[in-house]
Amino acid sequence: MDAPDSDKRRGASTRRRFLLGGAVAGVGAAAAIGLDYGINRAAESTPSAAPPRNGDEVVPFHGTHQAGIDTDAQAHATFVGLDLNADTDADALRRLMRILTDDAARLTQGEQALADSEPELAMAPARLTVTFGFGPGLVALAGGDRPTWLASLPAFETDRLQPEFSDGDLLIQIAADDPITVAHATRMLLKDSRSFAKVRWTQHGFRRAHGTVAPGTTMRNLFGQVDGTTNLAPGTEDFDRLVWSASGWLAGGTGAVIRRIHMDLDKWDRLDRGGREQSVGRFLHNGAPLTGENEHDEADFTATTAIGFPVIPEFSHMRRARSDNPDERFFRRGYNYDQPPTGEQVSDSGLIFVSFQADVDRQFVPIQRRLDELDLLNEWIAPIGSAVFAIPPGCERNGYIGETLLG
Amino acid sequence: MDAPDSDKRRGASTRRRFLLGGAVAGVGAAAAIGLDYGINRAAESTPSAAPPRNGDEVVPFHGTHQAGIDTDAQAHATFVGLDLNADTDADALRRLMRILTDDAARLTQGEQALADSEPELAMAPARLTVTFGFGPGLVALAGGDRPTWLASLPAFETDRLQPEFSDGDLLIQIAADDPITVAHATRMLLKDSRSFAKVRWTQHGFRRAHGTVAPGTTMRNLFGQVDGTTNLAPGTEDFDRLVWSASGWLAGGTGAVIRRIHMDLDKWDRLDRGGREQSVGRFLHNGAPLTGENEHDEADFTATTAIGFPVIPEFSHMRRARSDNPDERFFRRGYNYDQPPTGEQVSDSGLIFVSFQADVDRQFVPIQRRLDELDLLNEWIAPIGSAVFAIPPGCERNGYIGETLLG
Ligand code: HEM
Ligand code: HEM
Repeated sequence: MDAPDSDKRRGASTRRRFLLGGAVAGVGAAAAIGLDYGINRAAESTPSAAPPRNGDEVVPFHGTHQAGIDTDAQAHATFVGLDLNADTDADALRRLMRILTDDAARLTQGEQALADSEPELAMAPARLTVTFGFGPGLVALAGGDRPTWLASLPAFETDRLQPEFSDGDLLIQIAADDPITVAHATRMLLKDSRSFAKVRWTQHGFRRAHGTVAPGTTMRNLFGQVDGTTNLAPGTEDFDRLVWSASGWLAGGTGAVIRRIHMDLDKWDRLDRGGREQSVGRFLHNGAPLTGENEHDEADFTATTAIGFPVIPEFSHMRRARSDNPDERFFRRGYNYDQPPTGEQVSDSGLIFVSFQADVDRQFVPIQRRLDELDLLNEWIAPIGSAVFAIPPGCERNGYIGETLLG
Repeated sequence: MDAPDSDKRRGASTRRRFLLGGAVAGVGAAAAIGLDYGINRAAESTPSAAPPRNGDEVVPFHGTHQAGIDTDAQAHATFVGLDLNADTDADALRRLMRILTDDAARLTQGEQALADSEPELAMAPARLTVTFGFGPGLVALAGGDRPTWLASLPAFETDRLQPEFSDGDLLIQIAADDPITVAHATRMLLKDSRSFAKVRWTQHGFRRAHGTVAPGTTMRNLFGQVDGTTNLAPGTEDFDRLVWSASGWLAGGTGAVIRRIHMDLDKWDRLDRGGREQSVGRFLHNGAPLTGENEHDEADFTATTAIGFPVIPEFSHMRRARSDNPDERFFRRGYNYDQPPTGEQVSDSGLIFVSFQADVDRQFVPIQRRLDELDLLNEWIAPIGSAVFAIPPGCERNGYIGETLLG
């Protein structure tokens, strides 16, 4: 029942209310392509009693904000960074965004894209969201005001950046609870951007599958840590103030930082459990702070051990990542990655760190700088990709994503 | 409720009956690492009424056959081909298989592996199965009888094989409905094989997520086709006779063919819908044969059009793949793959074709040869990897996989 929930959260009064419409959209698509699929579904489920199958769940596309930010994170996500072709001008860009918006509006509702060559693969939206972001090059081409923070991040000591995972003009984040849905939507969107832009990088990420653990369980990363406990919560005042931009063409939009962070699992495994817990300041078994018992207990940074050391080490990731300035916060919505290892590697794994914030310079960079200077976790992690995008606001039925910049 | 079901199917009277034991195993692991997870679970579900969460579902490990063959295909699978190190002798191999068996027996039951460094990631088995296979090199090292068919397949005209996806001494197939479960199990198994063997290739594959479509729905591949309609059915006499080997150390085991087949989606998209349906002989919308209405209708290869052509083209994939000899059949259990595209590619997608059969030479090769000679589908597909393994039988509680060869 995530769709109605996240709909409420996204709180857009202008947004067409979603009436458990997944199944309906599905049948619509079925009818359109002469599919007898709807019949099976009808036979299987009493129309109004049983909750819809997860594959039928739909997240609204239109609204004040783009979906895929305050949407409960889906199990699978593909992030694609594209570079505009040299001959893509502002007019072409407008065309591109109209086409991509149309694709996204359809696919997320379980309807085939206009030129969909595998319409059957569009039939199970599984909470699909498609979120677009604009890099500095795109904003310059459009002749719009570039937010001061829309640029490559400053260089950090611990960076080991590879150009093949960094920067780009256009971001497309495609997320759903089903990997075939993600693969098909990605393909349709890339096909339609082909005459305008070239893929610069692609990253696949995952979290727990729908149904593996209880809804609302904080995700674990591949270090085994509970990751995401202290986070802005969609629907709260803090979230609205710190995530959504209020100014200019970006009003209702936000800023995205995407960093591919390699995690050295082998080295991590040589550290004992106590050391691992100290490096973050939280217990591994349930994510509670070292001064508490339950995951969401408040951390007590003043507590000391019998011999006078802080219980939560000063250089722990949690301590360093928490600023005294309550404005230096952002919304994290990352994904694990695990690529086939090469050479002597036993694994090629890490985190696709994703954060959303209205002002990257004021909210994200100070924290990243603190962590770069000192963070016990740095022993085991290394940023290998980095990109910053402006995420334009959502649009209404006849609009398109980017219209406030390009319109 | 797949676990009890597949247990029944696997029909091993010697097998410990699984008593909806997923949650129980989970709590066991929780207790072992001091986790307060079990409590949350207890609070969430009435012990006997609600079906267990899919993440808690367990497929039995011990039994006559290895799991992961007649198990309802899980959503995610990783296939790893390893090469034994030069200094791994028969004794070391025995040690390796004992260790890997122990890891697999634990992890599949939702228990941490012996040296598990991220025990919390082992807590959601999500129908995890681990299946081992032996290549010709391994069998030779063990001094066992090599089944005549245990060798690289003969070369085919349409092959475009890349060594990085072919052959190997040891296969590990890790499959579950959750991608974190697969990632963690893969890592534990590879860590423990590290002093004995080196990873030669790794392939990740996926099907629909659990909960996307109704259980029992035939999968679709990335061409959008219903793929897997005509297949041996686990639990039938045909399956038992054609899949399980009856002879020597392989009795209760089987043979596996794993072929990575690139699918040219771009070229496929230039073909119209009618052409696509003819290339296979089935409708795209529901997988029915071109002479029928429903997916499982019998194909009528004699039916002709008004102007006398066969309705199901003679060179269609289905027609060519069906032999008059009923022994030339196998059990297909493949996965889609979709890797980040490189260069000008819009996608790097295809099928990890996996088939199980008692005798690869008698059952698989004749069909592969027919398809190689003539198959309309060849216009859009190309095998880029190929490997053959002998899958040893299962084992009981104190045994290990491979004991009939190595014991
Ligand atoms: C692979 C890299 C990283 C790993 C494994 C990691 C892991 C964690 C873990 C386990 C926690 C504690 C649980 C929680 O509150 O979520 C945490 C908290 C946090 N992390 Fe990270 N993190 C990584 C990178 C980063 C980066 C790059 C940033 C930002 C620059 C960041 C910012 C934060 C913040 C703000 C918190 C919450 C701190 C608080 O309690 O106030 N993390 N991280
Ligand atoms: C990317 C490559 C392939 C694709 C896309 C593909 C697709 C399909 C499709 C759509 C069907 C019809 C539905 C069904 O009965 O499952 C089918 C049937 C079948 N395929 Fe394939 N296939 C591929 C490769 C292969 C290979 C390599 C073999 C074996 C050498 C094979 C053997 C079969 C068999 C035996 C059938 C059932 C034929 C019958 O109706 O009796 N396929 N395949």
